[in-house]
Amino acid sequence: MNLHPLDAALRLAPSGEPGSYTGASSPAYWNMVGPFGGTTAATAMHAVMQHPGRLGEPIALTVNYASALLAGPFSVKATPVRTNRSTQHWTVSLSQPDAAGVDSVAMTASLVTAVRRQTWGVNDTPMPEAGPPDAAARFDFSGGVEWIKRYEIRPLSGLIPRTWDGGGEDSLSRLWVRDDPPRPLDFVSLSALSDIFFPRVWLRRATHVPVGTVSMTVHFHADGAQLAECGDGFLLGQARAQAFRNGFFDQTAQLWSESGTLLVTTNQIVYYKE
Amino acid sequence: MNLHPLDAALRLAPSGEPGSYTGASSPAYWNMVGPFGGTTAATAMHAVMQHPGRLGEPIALTVNYASALLAGPFSVKATPVRTNRSTQHWTVSLSQPDAAGVDSVAMTASLVTAVRRQTWGVNDTPMPEAGPPDAAARFDFSGGVEWIKRYEIRPLSGLIPRTWDGGGEDSLSRLWVRDDPPRPLDFVSLSALSDIFFPRVWLRRATHVPVGTVSMTVHFHADGAQLAECGDGFLLGQARAQAFRNGFFDQTAQLWSESGTLLVTTNQIVYYKE
Repeated sequence: MNLHPLDAALRLAPSGEPGSYTGASSPAYWNMVGPFGGTTAATAMHAVMQHPGRLGEPIALTVNYASALLAGPFSVKATPVRTNRSTQHWTVSLSQPDAAGVDSVAMTASLVTAVRRQTWGVNDTPMPEAGPPDAAARFDFSGGVEWIKRYEIRPLSGLIPRTWDGGGEDSLSRLWVRDDPPRPLDFVSLSALSDIFFPRVWLRRATHVPVGTVSMTVHFHADGAQLAECGDGFLLGQARAQAFRNGFFDQTAQLWSESGTLLVTTNQIVYYKE
Repeated sequence: MNLHPLDAALRLAPSGEPGSYTGASSPAYWNMVGPFGGTTAATAMHAVMQHPGRLGEPIALTVNYASALLAGPFSVKATPVRTNRSTQHWTVSLSQPDAAGVDSVAMTASLVTAVRRQTWGVNDTPMPEAGPPDAAARFDFSGGVEWIKRYEIRPLSGLIPRTWDGGGEDSLSRLWVRDDPPRPLDFVSLSALSDIFFPRVWLRRATHVPVGTVSMTVHFHADGAQLAECGDGFLLGQARAQAFRNGFFDQTAQLWSESGTLLVTTNQIVYYKE
């Protein structure tokens, strides 16, 4: 069987009690220092999704990046801390031996799953006007870090600056994106895609400062059936910052299906230097 | 000493090991079933703020409401799971005996604190145009639930519907708000204020359905000195929803100081019925 690179990166082997797994950080999704944060978020999601005691589907995920993951194995534990009639609350912890060989927490996460029922609803954030994905040129990331080559990104606006001249004026980006090779959308890949946007400070400031996501929250507005309907099509992503101050900025983002369904709203807070 | 009602509501007594406390849900901040979720968030914040091992100030808080708190005592535990050079990652858990007397998790939270350094910065979300707080009429909540009387709210737009006729068209609200009686702003009160907005579904749909916040995330853009500068003045709050679908809607909100500094961006996902 030919595993998709994302599924290969997220492989978890059960280790003892239910919800305990071992995995390894993936060279195929390597970033500057450590793997792409999206795959770390997807690992937390994956640990809950494959837990035999799971109730319902994801509603909310928060991932706290306590340290960059090192190359090599890690252990993950997903714990259902409270199970109600239709909602379930999870905590997830990922640990890895640090440089000195001492087992240390590298990521914590919380996840809420729920059994959804059909109700009144409305999409209050229509997808921005955008031509079809084919009409946008694919960005060439061949010289970049490894993880970005695992995505097909077709920017629409707010590209990474070509010259770092301090001349940024806006923090809004829009783009089409999907896994490369294409892969049917699910909660795991959608968790990773929520972290797809390059750091807003690079765009707003047109200055290439060191950055690192500290915490990311994803709210899921679609159920598994709606994700399955997306198949391996493109998603429209939009991201902007609201504030940059004393070492941290935020990013608020949305991902729509190609047909205009708002799938995810996501927010993160990011460290930046200088 | 005359304790402010918020400080009385948040009283925590150390119980054994560092970071372990006992408290009690507050009648003064009672909501429909259980206390105001803002005070529960503030309790998580308070447990970390008074921990002797804390490094720096809050950057990100996520609170997961696993069940409504019952009247009476609870226990809280704040644990620093990873301490880096300038950031620290916390988990918080609140437990209470359930109706059957079994100790059960009612809330989990994660918090990131950090030592901030002066850097380049910009406020990318200017405060909306609003007259001074005195120019807006105070809303009369005297017939409402208890917690709302602990706040002075001066709505500007997007008020609670006067008639529940299903005629809602928009989910945006703006208001001036502060503690009542006034209280100097700090991270604890700001955590509670992040949950001040009434449920967006009531406004968007003009229908009074049962609701409950499932998870709330707060990103802090100001440090303690900037909060102290706000004194006991008003904050301008703005909230809207992005999507309502199959039992859950989101709320994205901002709080500015009266002088226009963006203090907090916050997002929550809320259960609704029907």
